[in-house]
Amino acid sequence: MSDNTKTVSLSTIASQSKQIPSAIDTATLLIKCKDQAGIVQAVSEFIHRYGANIITLDQYSTAHEGGQYFMRLEFALAGLSDIIENFEASFAHTVAKRHDMDWRLHNNATKTKVGILVSKFDHALLDLLWRHQRGLLDCEITCVVSNHPDLKQAVQNFGITFHHVPVTKDNKAEAEEQIHKLMAGNDLLVLARYMQILSSDFVKRWPMQIINIHHSFLPAFVGADPYRQAYDKGVKLIGATAHYVTAELDQGPIIEQDVHRVTHRQGVTELRAIGRDIERNVLARAVNWHVQNRVIVAGNKTVVFN
Amino acid sequence: MSDNTKTVSLSTIASQSKQIPSAIDTATLLIKCKDQAGIVQAVSEFIHRYGANIITLDQYSTAHEGGQYFMRLEFALAGLSDIIENFEASFAHTVAKRHDMDWRLHNNATKTKVGILVSKFDHALLDLLWRHQRGLLDCEITCVVSNHPDLKQAVQNFGITFHHVPVTKDNKAEAEEQIHKLMAGNDLLVLARYMQILSSDFVKRWPMQIINIHHSFLPAFVGADPYRQAYDKGVKLIGATAHYVTAELDQGPIIEQDVHRVTHRQGVTELRAIGRDIERNVLARAVNWHVQNRVIVAGNKTVVFN
Amino acid sequence: MSDNTKTVSLSTIASQSKQIPSAIDTATLLIKCKDQAGIVQAVSEFIHRYGANIITLDQYSTAHEGGQYFMRLEFALAGLSDIIENFEASFAHTVAKRHDMDWRLHNNATKTKVGILVSKFDHALLDLLWRHQRGLLDCEITCVVSNHPDLKQAVQNFGITFHHVPVTKDNKAEAEEQIHKLMAGNDLLVLARYMQILSSDFVKRWPMQIINIHHSFLPAFVGADPYRQAYDKGVKLIGATAHYVTAELDQGPIIEQDVHRVTHRQGVTELRAIGRDIERNVLARAVNWHVQNRVIVAGNKTVVFN
Amino acid sequence: MSDNTKTVSLSTIASQSKQIPSAIDTATLLIKCKDQAGIVQAVSEFIHRYGANIITLDQYSTAHEGGQYFMRLEFALAGLSDIIENFEASFAHTVAKRHDMDWRLHNNATKTKVGILVSKFDHALLDLLWRHQRGLLDCEITCVVSNHPDLKQAVQNFGITFHHVPVTKDNKAEAEEQIHKLMAGNDLLVLARYMQILSSDFVKRWPMQIINIHHSFLPAFVGADPYRQAYDKGVKLIGATAHYVTAELDQGPIIEQDVHRVTHRQGVTELRAIGRDIERNVLARAVNWHVQNRVIVAGNKTVVFN
Repeated sequence: MSDNTKTVSLSTIASQSKQIPSAIDTATLLIKCKDQAGIVQAVSEFIHRYGANIITLDQYSTAHEGGQYFMRLEFALAGLSDIIENFEASFAHTVAKRHDMDWRLHNNATKTKVGILVSKFDHALLDLLWRHQRGLLDCEITCVVSNHPDLKQAVQNFGITFHHVPVTKDNKAEAEEQIHKLMAGNDLLVLARYMQILSSDFVKRWPMQIINIHHSFLPAFVGADPYRQAYDKGVKLIGATAHYVTAELDQGPIIEQDVHRVTHRQGVTELRAIGRDIERNVLARAVNWHVQNRVIVAGNKTVVFN
Repeated sequence: MSDNTKTVSLSTIASQSKQIPSAIDTATLLIKCKDQAGIVQAVSEFIHRYGANIITLDQYSTAHEGGQYFMRLEFALAGLSDIIENFEASFAHTVAKRHDMDWRLHNNATKTKVGILVSKFDHALLDLLWRHQRGLLDCEITCVVSNHPDLKQAVQNFGITFHHVPVTKDNKAEAEEQIHKLMAGNDLLVLARYMQILSSDFVKRWPMQIINIHHSFLPAFVGADPYRQAYDKGVKLIGATAHYVTAELDQGPIIEQDVHRVTHRQGVTELRAIGRDIERNVLARAVNWHVQNRVIVAGNKTVVFN
Repeated sequence: MSDNTKTVSLSTIASQSKQIPSAIDTATLLIKCKDQAGIVQAVSEFIHRYGANIITLDQYSTAHEGGQYFMRLEFALAGLSDIIENFEASFAHTVAKRHDMDWRLHNNATKTKVGILVSKFDHALLDLLWRHQRGLLDCEITCVVSNHPDLKQAVQNFGITFHHVPVTKDNKAEAEEQIHKLMAGNDLLVLARYMQILSSDFVKRWPMQIINIHHSFLPAFVGADPYRQAYDKGVKLIGATAHYVTAELDQGPIIEQDVHRVTHRQGVTELRAIGRDIERNVLARAVNWHVQNRVIVAGNKTVVFN
Repeated sequence: MSDNTKTVSLSTIASQSKQIPSAIDTATLLIKCKDQAGIVQAVSEFIHRYGANIITLDQYSTAHEGGQYFMRLEFALAGLSDIIENFEASFAHTVAKRHDMDWRLHNNATKTKVGILVSKFDHALLDLLWRHQRGLLDCEITCVVSNHPDLKQAVQNFGITFHHVPVTKDNKAEAEEQIHKLMAGNDLLVLARYMQILSSDFVKRWPMQIINIHHSFLPAFVGADPYRQAYDKGVKLIGATAHYVTAELDQGPIIEQDVHRVTHRQGVTELRAIGRDIERNVLARAVNWHVQNRVIVAGNKTVVFN
């Protein structure tokens, strides 16, 4: 094993037991590729050669259904930050190239930067800010942008920057340009009941980097006023869906959904109230999984290793 | 109170305590009308005048949402069977007429007659036959009709009549006529994964008397192969829906629905297996509620007093 | 009907249609008594004589199981506030006495006064304060009492009075006396993850007026650190329970419960995080039902008309 | 890689793509050991050396909570059956020994042999027999033993051997001896609502090889008549639990649980009816996971890779 000149930490290799990583020397590797023989062996051997220890490994293969393979691997390596570029380059030239992999490596010490967009309904936003404040959302919330000024104080109470960007029928392009600039540097945008529809031009600049909470159980009730649609349809369960935003409204890859039972006794107002609770829980789970690098997009679906 | 010459059982009226009904002298009254003052008082007074005792009373009013009123009332009255026609006529001429009610009275001693249609998938059918055999389905299953011969022995094992009515592209009208004749006398038809689409002509002859189990969580995935549709969409919950059949495919009033959580790990085959369990439980609940007279149709929705 | 001199509003009596109540002239009547004939008729006739209109009526009878009867009735009556004392006195002397009823009448215009106790975990508290601020909790929150000072600012941000009442091994009786005084005038106390155990003396002064959120699915895991107990037991679902506090710890009548699926992958820390979400939703539902007068205590159980 | 003289199938090793296994040349490897570095690499390398392909891999490590490691790995290898003894011996002497593993290898072509015990309630039994008949339960049901004769015909209708072994206060030891003999050769016993309590002597002879369905949500309501206990307690959710049987009644490692919402409206009879549906679904899931080798027992808990 040790003929590999890329080995950095021989002391780690020789060790029989798991070492406790110093600081946060852990990283997450996400892989997507054609299903083929020897992936686990190749990846684990590569990890082992660097003297890293696998913390968690999840994989899924659709060999019978089209042949795609997905892996999420977390590993620990003392001094990782110093060698991560070398690690990535090596992986790219060897394992990833040989298996034609689509892959990403995240240094877990670097938090995902998140910008939130909101309109007037604040339940989903406040839930995210509250969790974030208590360290329950593993990311850095950089700012909140809203087309209304109402939530400025509430957001600032959390010590987070608030920007008011009004949107009218006439200024949509300029508003989106302003939002794009304000969000520059973020890894993820979260639409926490942001009621403006982002143009496909805007969306294309943030591919699979925008998570929206739609207040229905998709694919049912796309578009406007889904709780009224649900009420009129007489469904016995209502729900909410968190998904990546694509050019097509409410059609992007679904990350998480949940439902709650209702009866004839719940009118539209009550459905909205019940729905708000589902929305904030679903959005929080989806955002957390994304920032923990647990979501891999495959076609118009997601593989979530949670 | 006793100026009403329709009173039959003065001894019951005078009694302070509930009497245990002899035999099954109970009935269920279902009412639908415009919401207005005095309905409860009028109905309960009428019941009381006959010396009947209210066992259960459920009501719902959408006064703020359009003004409809719904009531389900079960009462007990010794010797009910002897006077039920008189009871109904009186109710019709007085309370019902005065409040312009849409209503039905069911003598609980008379079981709903149910005919089942099935194709090849037998899970929903067998579940109904098994529950019925053990007295858990409060109705009389009169026969099972199938477009395939496969389930003949399984059905006859339950002591129930089986009819094979093949359906081809060319004989559809005759087949439906035959089915209609075989089902004559039934109060309810249950499509337990019957894969033939009944014509609107057939459906019109059985208004709100056909319950179908659709293998998706409506309104998502109408039509064919919904589990494949669900798989392709990447939903995180799959479900089944029991509904009354109307002229429009999969669009009739929903009676009951349920869902089950799935992940990327479940391929189409496994979704179908999970779905079968949801289907039979949902269908059994819906059929039971219908035969217990717990379902009132309002527009394209249902009010279920369960 | 009109020989009753207590009738106030003849125009209402004569009316065939429901009138929209002026201001909030509605009330909720809760009844518990031995199951007997004629209750619905007696109560609805009484309501009707006053010219009041029934908005909702829910009832349940355990005739076969011990003979108890429960009713929740909401009615509207213009000018109710002026005559409510007379209404109550009449009801007491006639219907209630005749049927030996245990009953309460609530003028819906008068909001339930609620005091909250909390320690350090603020998720359940903040959820209640947030819902209350948005009019989603139909009561008046008068104050928050805590044995720690940490949440003072957070509470005051909602414009609600905060009291710090430290509790040590030696001052428990005095602390409870102080809490009792601070809470004087409240109709309900809510323990929103208040970690001190209230003495049975304290509890007796607030019979069925204290709601606690216990962080397990009772009766499993009573007492301390239930999430660790749940983790050690290896249950596949964890939950939370809202119940009335009685002298026996975690044994009072259960109002609401809910669960969430977990696997071996969730350690104790994660179980607590998942549990917090269940706790706040369950507590909010239970408190809302209580302040809407939807809960009737029967023995050590509750009948919830929701 | 090929210095290993144990390699059989060089053509397979050289292959770059996944081969479709001939017949059912797949196997499942279950591993439990102290968490340590290099397990994935060691195991995947061993698999790869034999020319086998990994189909699925699941692992879990509790490094922070006590240091246990669990893995389930399915692999395919043409001609597996011919070399499986050699494979096992090699694994034992090398990887397993080096890492001090507790492990088992199952040739997936060999079905788990299952014997079922039942008393009078047949819902759980029939559900298993029905699923088995349709190939939805991946095992071989060898026989059904009952302390009552009632279900003989129902079982024989499925073409399965039925044994009647009556149990009285006086013959318990002999009855258990007889059951033990009848069950000889089985890998798993399933108590599908078998109401006799097996002695600890019997249980010790079948360690972690008996699955019971208990009709409550454990640890709540152990022992007899749990639905009545649940009714008296006034819980808002009832459930069922499938677990391995140990010497302590209802205390063994939990495999699966589920619940269903109930209200005051459901009396004991109805709770039992609802419960039966939960029981059969929970038992079927647990048995299926066991026979698919998805369950690893760890202490008094289970790790289920499903």
